[in-house]
Order: sequence, then C-alpha cells, then structure tokens
Amino acid sequence: MQNNHNHRHRNGEENGEAHDNFFHYNEEDEKCEEGAYECTHCDVAKFRYPDGTVRLRNPHIELMDQDILYHLALGSESHDLVEMFGDVKFVCMGGTPKRMEAFAYYIMKEIGHKLPTGTTLQDISQYSYRYSMYKVGPILSVSHGMGVPSIGILLHEIIKLMYHAKAKDPIFFRIGTCGGIGLEGGTVVISDDAVNEMGQHHYEVPMLGKPVRRPAKLDRRLVRELRALADPEDPYETVIGTTMCANDFYEGQGRMDGAFCDYSESEKMAYLTHLQSNGVKNIEMEVVPFAALTHHAGIKAAVVCVALLDRLKGDQVCAPKEVLDEWQIRPQKLVGRYIKRYLQTKGRISFDGHGSMAVKSPRRFKLVQQESETFD
Amino acid sequence: MQNNHNHRHRNGEENGEAHDNFFHYNEEDEKCEEGAYECTHCDVAKFRYPDGTVRLRNPHIELMDQDILYHLALGSESHDLVEMFGDVKFVCMGGTPKRMEAFAYYIMKEIGHKLPTGTTLQDISQYSYRYSMYKVGPILSVSHGMGVPSIGILLHEIIKLMYHAKAKDPIFFRIGTCGGIGLEGGTVVISDDAVNEMGQHHYEVPMLGKPVRRPAKLDRRLVRELRALADPEDPYETVIGTTMCANDFYEGQGRMDGAFCDYSESEKMAYLTHLQSNGVKNIEMEVVPFAALTHHAGIKAAVVCVALLDRLKGDQVCAPKEVLDEWQIRPQKLVGRYIKRYLQTKGRISFDGHGSMAVKSPRRFKLVQQESETFD
Repeated sequence: MQNNHNHRHRNGEENGEAHDNFFHYNEEDEKCEEGAYECTHCDVAKFRYPDGTVRLRNPHIELMDQDILYHLALGSESHDLVEMFGDVKFVCMGGTPKRMEAFAYYIMKEIGHKLPTGTTLQDISQYSYRYSMYKVGPILSVSHGMGVPSIGILLHEIIKLMYHAKAKDPIFFRIGTCGGIGLEGGTVVISDDAVNEMGQHHYEVPMLGKPVRRPAKLDRRLVRELRALADPEDPYETVIGTTMCANDFYEGQGRMDGAFCDYSESEKMAYLTHLQSNGVKNIEMEVVPFAALTHHAGIKAAVVCVALLDRLKGDQVCAPKEVLDEWQIRPQKLVGRYIKRYLQTKGRISFDGHGSMAVKSPRRFKLVQQESETFD
Repeated sequence: MQNNHNHRHRNGEENGEAHDNFFHYNEEDEKCEEGAYECTHCDVAKFRYPDGTVRLRNPHIELMDQDILYHLALGSESHDLVEMFGDVKFVCMGGTPKRMEAFAYYIMKEIGHKLPTGTTLQDISQYSYRYSMYKVGPILSVSHGMGVPSIGILLHEIIKLMYHAKAKDPIFFRIGTCGGIGLEGGTVVISDDAVNEMGQHHYEVPMLGKPVRRPAKLDRRLVRELRALADPEDPYETVIGTTMCANDFYEGQGRMDGAFCDYSESEKMAYLTHLQSNGVKNIEMEVVPFAALTHHAGIKAAVVCVALLDRLKGDQVCAPKEVLDEWQIRPQKLVGRYIKRYLQTKGRISFDGHGSMAVKSPRRFKLVQQESETFD
C-alpha cells in the first residue's frame, strides 16, 4: 500500500548506513517498503500537528469528557496539563523510582536548573503508587518498573500526557541496566536495534484476541549523536548494538539461577554465543515496547543501558553496591550530555538561576549544616 | 508419557467438579492426561522433601556458593534465611508497595500479632528498590509491580526464598485489582481458571530461543475454601470465574482510551461479550505466570481480585479514591479470613501477645498522642 509513492526516499542502506536520519519527521529520509513498516515521512500528519505537538493515533480521546492518566495520578480536566507539562522536551525513563529521582537531581545540576528557595523536587505521581515522576524544567524523569507491560502502560500514558500538554517534538530516553554479552560489567550500550527472545523485530500485542505486530525501531541518528558524546576519557567503553528484550529475568534470559532450570550450562552458552554472533550486545526487559510504541507515535527515542555483568561469565550480579551505583550513573551521564548540548544549542540553558538555595562558600555552607544538625 | 500409570486418579469432572482436591500433594486427586500437564501426585518428589519443605526444580542452585536474590536484596549466604523466613506459611502478593504495607498492618491486627515495644514493620527489600516486602509472623506481604515479567521475577525469587528458608508447604495468594466483565465495581473475583489474551491456559516462556509452555493452573479446593469464607453479610458479591491475563492495560484489554486505538466501540463490545460468554469474569495482568509458576513449583496458590469497574460499561476507572480504597480492602479481608481460620485451626494464633504497643484506653491514648504532636 506504500509502494506507489511518486517520490523515492533516501535509503540509508544504499550508502552503507541503514535508515540514516530516521524519524526526523520533516526530512525525506525513510525507505518505503511495502508492508514492512510505516513511512514516517508520508505519515507525518499521523504523528504531529504543524507546530510539532503530538497528534494521537486514537480518535476517541478527543471525544472523551476527561482522560484520566490513572497510573500517573493525573487527569486532562483535573490538571492543567499544558501549564504543567507544555514545556517538556525530554522524557527520561528508568526502572526504579530511586534511580529516576537521582537522575532528576543529576540533570538539574548539569543544566543549571534552579528551584525557588524553600522548594524541592516532588514525585508528581506519588498518589498513583505505581510510577514516580519528577520534572526538572523541560525534562521529565519517570520510573517505569520492570518488564514489557509496566513500561507499556507508562508509554501509553506519557504519550497521552505529551498530547494533552501540547509538548513539541519530545524525545524519549530509556536509561537502564542490562546483562552484557561479551561486554565487561560497566560497559555502556546504546541500542540501535531491538529484538524479542525469538529474534523478531516487532512488538506483538494481542488486540481483541488477535495478535498485532508493531515494528520495534529506534532512531539511528540519535544513536550516532549519543555515541559521539561518549568521552574518550571515560574509563569505560560505550558501544552500539542490538538489544534483546526478554519477558523473564531467569529462564527467559538463559540464566541457570532461577527457581527452575531445564537446560545445561553448555546449552546456555551455545544460546548466548548464538545471540552474540547475531549482534546482540545486551539483554534487558523493556526495549521492544519502548522502541515500538515510540515509533508508532512518531517520537524520537533511544535506549542507553549499562551492563551489570557479562552473561558469558555468569548469571548473578556480584559487583559491590558502590561499584553498581557508579555504573548506573554512566547512562545518565551520556543522556545528560545530550540534553545539555541540546539545550545549549537552543539557548535554553542557564547557570544564572536565582531564587534557589544559593551557596556562597561550600565550606561554610557545610559547617552551618553540621551545626544545625547538632542542635536539632 | 504419563498414560501408562497403573493407578487411576480421581477425576473431578466425573463427579461434576473439575480437579477436586487439586494439588494437595499427598492426595491421589489429579487426572493424568498424556502431555496435558504434569501429574502432581506422581511428581510429588519433584516438589517437596518429606518434611514439606520446598524442593527446587533446578539442580544448579545447590551447587552455587551463594544465591543472591537480587530483586529482594537478600542472599543465601549473607542472610540467615532459615532464621528469618523459616516460619513463613503464607506469601501474599499485590501490585503496589502501599497496598502490601497496608495488608501487613491489616493482617497483623487480624491475627493478633504483636510487635515488641519500640519496633515497627520494616520493608525487608527496601534496598532492592524493586519490591517491598513485609513480614508479620508466618505471613509475607510483598508487592509484585505490574505485569507478567515483574511478578515472574518475584515468583522465581520468592520460590527460591522458600527453598532456602526451608519453609513448609507455603501457600501463595495474589490480592489484586482488575477490570470486571459484567460485574459491578467492588465485586470480588476468585479465579478458578487462568487464560492469556489468546484464550490459552498456559504461560509461554521462550527459553534459549524456544517457546516452552507451562500450564496455568490454580488450586480448586483453595478456591472453594475461599468462596466459603465470603460472608453473606458482605455488602458486595464474591464470585468465582476465569481470569484473563493481559500483557497490556490499554489495547491488550480492548480499552479505547490508550495512546493508540484501531478498533471501534462495537468491535470492542463484541470482544468483551465473547470473553464473557467464555466464562471470563475479569481481566488483570499477572494471573497466568502466578498460576503457572506456583503450579510448576507445586505450591498451592489462589488469586483474589476486586473489580474496579465493569468493562462492559467503560474503560476508565472513575470511582472516587475513598471508594477505591474501600474496594481494595475486600480481597485482603477474604484472604485475611482464610489465614486467620488456618492459624486458629493450627493453634498458631494468639491475641495475648506482649511487648508491643499496648493500649489501655483508646481515648487517653489518642489524647496523649495529640498532646505530644502539639509539643513537637
């Protein structure tokens, strides 16, 4: 149905690079293959209004009296979502509330965002008891829990949130942890491809009892841009590769340390080696719906994970807590560099905020704090 | 391979009731169908040691130096799991940390469990930042997050925990929320059958790239025992039925209020009516792996959910918070009655605890509290 186009899109593979500039909606950059996946170029009207705000691919939402984003504890009529979230440019997701709170404070410092005196970050979705969400200027930092259904629910609601808020051309990041395949613990992986456990490049959702497949595609340019921000001084590697999405942490990832195991060490190694030879660099549990739902919504997205272990060497995560804590910051740093660079380019970054806690002398500041604590 | 048994198990369906006494491992109660599912009777040695402690169906765990239950922040060598968890008889799971904390306090009151003065419940898994786990005497109350992978990880680690702790014949409950089909909001549903979105009665996990199917079976006797504890005075219905497990909250459950929707209201209604005519009473997101993994481990288990809405009437959960809060207590009450009854039968319940906060006069207790707060 898409092969009768009268224009020919640039096909990245012809110049040695697959899907160059993929997904930049105002560029003529997407190969059209009949039935393979939707063409972003041709379908731009599906994804965006002329001002860049998100167009929902669901005609029913407009007709609803109100739309309750149940798992975010927000609603389209109870909250002024345009006022609250209209300025959002980046949505950063990660597994745990703690990591995403830490990322919110990290990015706040990185972009020089200041909070008014007497204020602190608050978990916007605290009353959902499901996800945690923090907002730092144009950045949302949200926890997605573990696994496909959990991130799926979040993506539906965050995409609707972007729509209600009239946010313009938002970019989504997943900042995660993973098992590496042939990668040292601490290695950072930028996903350029997403596959499920069967090696398929799609997200299958049964709808009304019939399986529907959505291509799981990530933005190639964003991958390169992120890779370019890896600092040669970084004391760890940053690699690009295929990420496998598993629906189980134990048997679904070939681990032998679950409650059940019916295969041998050599069968497991043969499997992991097979994955490796197919370009799989890491295994996590969310990349397929993340890639597929953002792609389906026409939202630019990337996944950056740190490997907590090399699965060719074992199943259990054994690094000490301090080491793991430091590793988990690595994807945050890379995404932080991207956001900072972007905001600098747009002139939207400032280190001259005022109204927030202003430190004149760090030494005295600390002393005053310590004294206060003593007198408490 | 199991049809050449020289004994004939009682088949519940022959006397009008399917799989009577299912899963009580020392009873001859399970029909053997070739290849259909494993026979608990014949496989008892797979599941239990003679003293009732859990036998793991994974030969590798015994050989490991240590087993880190990564998502629970516990380890077999770092923690004395027998000392900490050896007395566990019931594992109760539910979606949110908040609900499971509330259940811990609820069941503590119900069974008259007392904490020593100056102590309070603590989230045992707080350092995992994944699940929350509370322990009240022989009861664990654990959050499982949302969706199949999240509860799957928890089940693997809780089953291993039961093994390491040498807990005897533990019983697992899931206390959840769901969408009802033709049921008023607030109705309690006890699942007697579990199906996925394709109507299949199994949990499919790809292992080493090949799909493996595990039957999703629940304990029929436990269903009846729970149903018998529904109080005719309860101002709501408690029903038994098939529960469908969806991997998505929106499109996977035929909702029209997700970020995407490609079907019409009448197609949705046809689907939900089709489910209803097949005995599906409710839809949630965890029952299939819960049933399958407990069954595979030989652990008696039941799922009790409250319907937050009737999906035949809408998609959005609109009941006020206070109403929802009251509804969410209903499955807790039913499971609470079961646990209380069980412990009473075993003589393991006591209302004469000491050492904990003892209230002499509730009125004066409150006054003292209020005064203390004023002086803070």
